[in-house]
Amino acid sequence: MQQLLVVKIGGNIIDNDVALTEFLKDFTAINGPRVLIHGGGKLATQLSTRLNIPTQMVNGRRITDADTLQVVTMTYAGWINKNITAGLNALGANAIGITGADASLLPAVKRPVTDVDFGFVGDLLTDKVNINLLHTLLHNNLLPVIAPITANSSGQLLNVNADTVAAAIATALSQSYNVSLVYCFEKSGLLADVDKDDSIIENITAATVEVLKQNGTITAGMLPKVDNALAAVAKGVKRVVIGNAAHINAIANNKTGYGTTIS
Amino acid sequence: MQQLLVVKIGGNIIDNDVALTEFLKDFTAINGPRVLIHGGGKLATQLSTRLNIPTQMVNGRRITDADTLQVVTMTYAGWINKNITAGLNALGANAIGITGADASLLPAVKRPVTDVDFGFVGDLLTDKVNINLLHTLLHNNLLPVIAPITANSSGQLLNVNADTVAAAIATALSQSYNVSLVYCFEKSGLLADVDKDDSIIENITAATVEVLKQNGTITAGMLPKVDNALAAVAKGVKRVVIGNAAHINAIANNKTGYGTTIS
Repeated sequence: MQQLLVVKIGGNIIDNDVALTEFLKDFTAINGPRVLIHGGGKLATQLSTRLNIPTQMVNGRRITDADTLQVVTMTYAGWINKNITAGLNALGANAIGITGADASLLPAVKRPVTDVDFGFVGDLLTDKVNINLLHTLLHNNLLPVIAPITANSSGQLLNVNADTVAAAIATALSQSYNVSLVYCFEKSGLLADVDKDDSIIENITAATVEVLKQNGTITAGMLPKVDNALAAVAKGVKRVVIGNAAHINAIANNKTGYGTTIS
Repeated sequence: MQQLLVVKIGGNIIDNDVALTEFLKDFTAINGPRVLIHGGGKLATQLSTRLNIPTQMVNGRRITDADTLQVVTMTYAGWINKNITAGLNALGANAIGITGADASLLPAVKRPVTDVDFGFVGDLLTDKVNINLLHTLLHNNLLPVIAPITANSSGQLLNVNADTVAAAIATALSQSYNVSLVYCFEKSGLLADVDKDDSIIENITAATVEVLKQNGTITAGMLPKVDNALAAVAKGVKRVVIGNAAHINAIANNKTGYGTTIS
């Protein structure tokens, strides 16, 4: 099977013009089919503040009321998605910016209300990803740039977690490609010593993850990435790497010493 | 050649939930390949007001400074585009929402500064439309929904006029389809008597347009639509109809008595 690279970038890159420009150059230079998923960043929170929309968090997760849904759709699917896409195209890529709502790429349901009402947040129906759309785009040398917004079957837009989107896309494509999924974050990988950026744990597995969770090496903020990574590997993704966006070329080319590989 | 329908809707539909829902139903029910272009509406102006961004107009045209560019990109390419796309998909369409910046669909240059500096406004390079992208989407039964935002070759996003986008798309596709271009507006067509909605002028040509301009039947607000329509017909679009969005099915099916046809 052909190699395919799925990369997720988050706020630490999106909010930093220099880092984003550098990343887009490196990403464009990588050969072969690629998919880019981006998260949000500070813009949504800043815009909410300017519009006097209170940011409600429960257990570290944003509650998406109607006003917040409008803000995140505008910032993620509008400003951020189109700037990244136009930036890639200026570098010679053939990028097309979409969301999970386009061609029903990522069918979802509104998260059921239990103790918490998360509002307009989507839970992906991961077995209903529109793989045909991705094949059509990739076979025509288009580079999908995906914002973490989707819709339910009634056309209600929903906010979704970008890490989860990346895992769902990577998993769906693993039926027809050898998929490498890369989660970019602000460190060079999972670190044995959080104060030493060169203490990268090069490889982890489902078995070692449990130990690393218990001894605190995998912190709360990393848990969703690691859990998504393990699930993706269990469902057929060849490898998942958690590493620094500045090392994307080395990671894509499988160089040792860059990022933490989950397999 | 196969028939293809290019429809442009503006603020009078976008700002009216009932009219928009009805239009999306009618539009989805039309057979054959279609492209939808949408304009803005009140949301951008409302958002600018809430953010204390002054709306600067010169000769009835909006000046797009950096803050305004962000607002229009967020509203047009984000909120409006994704709501329309998700709404169409809920009705069974296979719509994909994009802008002129995606896959460099509509290459443009920033409008040169003369007496007026329009700011981040794009002039389309109409001979460089990425027809391949449209073919790829249409051949795969995808319905493009296009927001009037594009980029120059450096990746700078630019605001473009939706009427002009519709004409450029229709013209580019007329090389491979029999294209009908429909401009939807709030009246049933060009009216001989502006107070009588049934006084539709059914057909006009380049020759009769001059008379209608001079006698005031074609008003200032209609001029860009009519000029775009004539230019599109001159460049190969089979027919252009200016009519009411509520009549889109009748217009698509060539029924007499609906809209003003420019040929």
